[in-house]
Amino acid sequence: MDEVIADVIPKFLDIYEAEFGYRLKEKDYLGGKIYDRPNAYHLRKHLHNPTFFSDLPVIKDSKEVVEWLTQHFDVYILTSTMEFKNSLVAKYDWLSKNFPFISWKKYIFAGEKQFIQADYMIDDKARNLETFTGKKLLFTACHNLEETRFTRMNNWQEIKTYFEKELAQNLQPAIRNPQLS
Amino acid sequence: MDEVIADVIPKFLDIYEAEFGYRLKEKDYLGGKIYDRPNAYHLRKHLHNPTFFSDLPVIKDSKEVVEWLTQHFDVYILTSTMEFKNSLVAKYDWLSKNFPFISWKKYIFAGEKQFIQADYMIDDKARNLETFTGKKLLFTACHNLEETRFTRMNNWQEIKTYFEKELAQNLQPAIRNPQLS
Repeated sequence: MDEVIADVIPKFLDIYEAEFGYRLKEKDYLGGKIYDRPNAYHLRKHLHNPTFFSDLPVIKDSKEVVEWLTQHFDVYILTSTMEFKNSLVAKYDWLSKNFPFISWKKYIFAGEKQFIQADYMIDDKARNLETFTGKKLLFTACHNLEETRFTRMNNWQEIKTYFEKELAQNLQPAIRNPQLS
Repeated sequence: MDEVIADVIPKFLDIYEAEFGYRLKEKDYLGGKIYDRPNAYHLRKHLHNPTFFSDLPVIKDSKEVVEWLTQHFDVYILTSTMEFKNSLVAKYDWLSKNFPFISWKKYIFAGEKQFIQADYMIDDKARNLETFTGKKLLFTACHNLEETRFTRMNNWQEIKTYFEKELAQNLQPAIRNPQLS
C-alpha cells in the first residue's frame, strides 16, 4: 500500500515542515525516508496515529491500473500493518473507499511478508521482494533508487505495459485453445 | 484463531440462551455452527461487535503447545478477519495478551487464505485446507466432524505429538550432520 498505491510523502512533508519550519525538496530525501533525515526519526511516531492513513492520496494511475488488473488477474492487497495497530481500521477504510472494486476477501494485513505465494509482487521494499518466489516488481520510491536486483516499475503506466505484455505472452493461440496445439 | 486457539463456543452459547431461553447441549449443534440452528442465523451479527473477540477463552493446551512450536518452527497466526472490520483490533489485542511469545511480525489478518505458502497449516475449515499446498491438519470443531480428507487433530496434545514425530524424522543424523552422509 504505502508508496505503491497510497502516497505517504505529502503528509510527511507537512509533518516535517511543522516540526522544522522547512518544506523539503525531493532532492533532500532522495535515497531514504523523510524520517531518516538528521534528527527526524521521531517523526515516524506519526505512523501510530489512528488517522494517519485515513486520507492519504492515491498514487497516480494506481486506481485505474489496479482495476484493470482485476479484470485479468486475481489481485490481493498485501500490506505491512502490524507494527501500527492503529493503522488496521484506517487502512481497511482507505481501501474500501479508494479501491472499492477489490473485495475485503483480498486484503492481507501482515507483519512480515515472507509467507506469500503468488505469481507477481509489486512492492517498494527490496526486503519484501528478496524472499518472494514469483516475479518481483520494484515500485520506484525515494528510498529504493539504488536498488538494481529487481524489475523496476517507475509508475503505474509502466505496470500496465508490463502486464499487457505478460498477458499477450500467455494468450498465444496454442495456449488459449489448447486443443489446437 | 477461532475454534483453533480462540474458543467462540461459550460466547455463542450465552448469546443463543439470551435469545431463545435455552442452553444448548453439544449434541444440539454438532455438525454445524450454533448460528446454523433454526431461526438463529441472525446471531452471527454478534461477530461484528467490536468486543466479541476481546475476551474469548484460549482453547485448552493451545498456548503451551504453540509456545513449544515456536521453539522449533517459524509460527504464523493466520486468521480470517476481514469480513468483520471491528474484529481487527480486538484480535490483535487478544493475540498480544494470550500469545505474547509470538511477535506481531507473525500475524496475518486476511480475507481468504489461498495465498499462504507454508509447510503446515492447522485450521478448522476444510475450505482453507483444500487450497493449501503444504501438510493439512484439520483441527476438530463441531462443524467439521464429517470431514475425512485431512489429517485430523482432536486437540493440542495430538498436535504436539504430531510435530514431535515430524521433528524426529527431520533430525536423523544424516540430515543433522550432512557431512557424515
